Amino acid sequence: MSSSDIFIGETIGTAILILLGGGVCAAVTLKASKARNAGWLAITFGWGFAVLTAVYTSAPLSGAHLNPAVTVALAIKDNDWSNVPTYFAGQFLGAMIGAALVWVAYYGQFHAHLTDKEIVGGPGAQATAAKAVEAQEKGAGPVLGIFSTGPEIRNAVQNLLTEIIGTIVLVLAVLTQGLNDSGKGLGTLGALITALVVVSIGLSLGGPTGYAINPARDLGPRIVHALLPLPNKGGSDWGYAWIPVVGPLIGGAIAAGIYNVAFA
Amino acid sequence: MSSSDIFIGETIGTAILILLGGGVCAAVTLKASKARNAGWLAITFGWGFAVLTAVYTSAPLSGAHLNPAVTVALAIKDNDWSNVPTYFAGQFLGAMIGAALVWVAYYGQFHAHLTDKEIVGGPGAQATAAKAVEAQEKGAGPVLGIFSTGPEIRNAVQNLLTEIIGTIVLVLAVLTQGLNDSGKGLGTLGALITALVVVSIGLSLGGPTGYAINPARDLGPRIVHALLPLPNKGGSDWGYAWIPVVGPLIGGAIAAGIYNVAFA
Amino acid sequence: MSSSDIFIGETIGTAILILLGGGVCAAVTLKASKARNAGWLAITFGWGFAVLTAVYTSAPLSGAHLNPAVTVALAIKDNDWSNVPTYFAGQFLGAMIGAALVWVAYYGQFHAHLTDKEIVGGPGAQATAAKAVEAQEKGAGPVLGIFSTGPEIRNAVQNLLTEIIGTIVLVLAVLTQGLNDSGKGLGTLGALITALVVVSIGLSLGGPTGYAINPARDLGPRIVHALLPLPNKGGSDWGYAWIPVVGPLIGGAIAAGIYNVAFA
Amino acid sequence: MSSSDIFIGETIGTAILILLGGGVCAAVTLKASKARNAGWLAITFGWGFAVLTAVYTSAPLSGAHLNPAVTVALAIKDNDWSNVPTYFAGQFLGAMIGAALVWVAYYGQFHAHLTDKEIVGGPGAQATAAKAVEAQEKGAGPVLGIFSTGPEIRNAVQNLLTEIIGTIVLVLAVLTQGLNDSGKGLGTLGALITALVVVSIGLSLGGPTGYAINPARDLGPRIVHALLPLPNKGGSDWGYAWIPVVGPLIGGAIAAGIYNVAFA
Repeated sequence: MSSSDIFIGETIGTAILILLGGGVCAAVTLKASKARNAGWLAITFGWGFAVLTAVYTSAPLSGAHLNPAVTVALAIKDNDWSNVPTYFAGQFLGAMIGAALVWVAYYGQFHAHLTDKEIVGGPGAQATAAKAVEAQEKGAGPVLGIFSTGPEIRNAVQNLLTEIIGTIVLVLAVLTQGLNDSGKGLGTLGALITALVVVSIGLSLGGPTGYAINPARDLGPRIVHALLPLPNKGGSDWGYAWIPVVGPLIGGAIAAGIYNVAFA
Repeated sequence: MSSSDIFIGETIGTAILILLGGGVCAAVTLKASKARNAGWLAITFGWGFAVLTAVYTSAPLSGAHLNPAVTVALAIKDNDWSNVPTYFAGQFLGAMIGAALVWVAYYGQFHAHLTDKEIVGGPGAQATAAKAVEAQEKGAGPVLGIFSTGPEIRNAVQNLLTEIIGTIVLVLAVLTQGLNDSGKGLGTLGALITALVVVSIGLSLGGPTGYAINPARDLGPRIVHALLPLPNKGGSDWGYAWIPVVGPLIGGAIAAGIYNVAFA
Repeated sequence: MSSSDIFIGETIGTAILILLGGGVCAAVTLKASKARNAGWLAITFGWGFAVLTAVYTSAPLSGAHLNPAVTVALAIKDNDWSNVPTYFAGQFLGAMIGAALVWVAYYGQFHAHLTDKEIVGGPGAQATAAKAVEAQEKGAGPVLGIFSTGPEIRNAVQNLLTEIIGTIVLVLAVLTQGLNDSGKGLGTLGALITALVVVSIGLSLGGPTGYAINPARDLGPRIVHALLPLPNKGGSDWGYAWIPVVGPLIGGAIAAGIYNVAFA
Repeated sequence: MSSSDIFIGETIGTAILILLGGGVCAAVTLKASKARNAGWLAITFGWGFAVLTAVYTSAPLSGAHLNPAVTVALAIKDNDWSNVPTYFAGQFLGAMIGAALVWVAYYGQFHAHLTDKEIVGGPGAQATAAKAVEAQEKGAGPVLGIFSTGPEIRNAVQNLLTEIIGTIVLVLAVLTQGLNDSGKGLGTLGALITALVVVSIGLSLGGPTGYAINPARDLGPRIVHALLPLPNKGGSDWGYAWIPVVGPLIGGAIAAGIYNVAFA
């Protein structure tokens, strides 16, 4: 794979991943969306099939890492760091493009939601308003969850451990693909399995922190949230931003270590 | 593939697509249906598995485009427009047959629903009646959603952009199939992947407009809605009808351009 | 395939199909079940994965028809009726065994449900009691839906047409498997595709009649319902019993005709 | 496969299985989890995709039994018991590690849940408190369901039969994999089919007892529940603990017998 194929593949793939992944959060959250309140199963399948679509589309160009934690794990496994900066660049650029496209696709819904007095703190908003006040104090705005993850209970040690554990599961499944599929790489079946593993992590380990398990998935859209001209958008919760970056990178490294000891 | 195989395959395939896709909307919407109010996840899986069934069944005859946006994208990619009219003819005929079959399968349910005073505007209907009045003003009847898509917020620019973005995602995934599956085309796995990509687009980008992403899927059933002798059916919302035709065609063309630049 | 393999395979396979298919209806319906009120999506996925498990397990022995409509369609397609009686015998025996196993697995739940005064007509039961009275008049007991299908609106013509349409979709997908999978028959992928086609038919065409689309699936368990010593079980609705037998057989024959004209 | 590969593979695989399977129960049950009350479909897909992830990851090392009932069935089928103790050791160790990891990932949620007066028996807790009292009398604490299974209706004969029936279905599908997949073993497709069979068993046969269908899945986490320093955790329901051990072993043996008679 050439450097330009890697960069283009990761940019396209991560843009699709975040467009669809952020999209399902917008669909389920925002006012005037047909999918509003469709529930946790919709969110977890939505993110999983976002992975499917993104991996399938970009695999022929870049092998579809779409996640710095996967890139780091493969670099450790193969002891080859030469393409890591190219992968990272495509992943963060793609994540920012994807987050901006969510805003385009749900433009009217964002506006309707964020100018609704019931939602952003008018007198009629009760539970929602209380939650918004609490969120504002933490630095999390009312639609930040469409862009980035956040914890239900703030506890840096637990939050970090949950992200590490989730990423270990993801990366171990990605690394063992070569053993299961006779080295054919991330083709049709690899994309499907990876997608369902992500649904699994969402259903089973998403409860405490919202399962970033991918630094680009969390940080790229958080930057876009900070930049977009959304009314009443609130803070971007920068105090939490390091956890979904550091946790997945540690998890990816641990998974590569487990792989090299137990499977190689 | 012969012209007659293409025409028959597209007619059968698109008929199955719309029978099952319109069918799930009828199932979830209509009075006296066991699936009433089964929710957004049922609708998106229903449309996705409609694609699976339709693609799988018609692929041996016509390659299963079932969507003018896919046909246009493949014509641009291969620079071969010779079969495009045959594909289009089968797709629109099939879509109309499928929509008529939904009416046959749910005949009693349509009648029960549209003659229910609570639903079509009697004194006891409150929220529903208000919604129906609003819909009538826009030209959308109470069961039009079983046939065609419509926006939650009417904004031609956003609605068009949402349809364009959704179709780009769909068509890119279809075009990269040849790279992932060693040129075997739309067989078993291709049908499954395409189906799950459509579930993904529904979950993630369906909120604003109901994801037509296919001109035949929207226009064919809208014509059938206008023709069918349904009581109290209301308008067919012709003011909106051009968006789910033009948007997907633009999206397909853009996806073919991206493919030719980045993947070919 | 020998006659004994066919008979044993169809018996085991149809028993698993009805155990799991009837099982999900029991799980969602009965008192003191963890899955009570899990919804229509649970029922349709439950039946679909019942097909997956049953087809996968029995395919090596009998090719996994598990449905007289499929057997008839394949006999028409291949013009070979020699094994049809053996298939039918295994299918009906298996369906009856499967329905009896549902009763064993949910023994306590059946008893708790059918001796609950709220459910079977005591003074506190309002909507449920009214529904039970209406059902009794029609000849449908309160747990008959765990065994057999029934219509939401009784209309022999529509009910028959809905079953015919659903079965045509199912059988066309089964018949085109040979074209999609290079003649490998109903192995892993065939089982998965068939399962998801059944989920699709359930979601999209199940609303009016509950999608029998299989004479053995409906008649076998109905006989078991009539025989089992369940308290307050009500009637077996024999007046409706011919529709889910005749409809699927007609649908299978039409599908075989379409296949022979368009695909062969 | 070497003994150490078997032991390591089963330990890693069963740890992932219980981490994700117990995880989805924690996600749906505990206070301050984003997935709280996500429903039965989330639980059954969660356990199914837990099987997918665990089987896929560990198959290259140990063949991914992850279940003593599967190990016993394969030993009977092949009449080779030499590796059975190694499989068992890895399975129970892995199950205990997985259960402990659920506690780590949901640490704050466990504490918030078990110190909530509404949940563990304060004056405001009504239905929940009554249920907790009833559970305490039986020896089942308020979060035991995250670790181990329990019956809705206590009846040793029915509970045992339900576990036996569910395990027969699971093991028959595992044993016929060799016939469907040309002896390639538990690779990509095997993992997917097994996962969906487990979803099927959950949806269809999980209502009465919560479908242990695996002695290690139930006993290992129950021991961890007894050992963990959780506040107000209640009893571990040891009176029921033998059923999800004995039932699946009997079911596995019966399935192996059916296989050897009908399929071999």
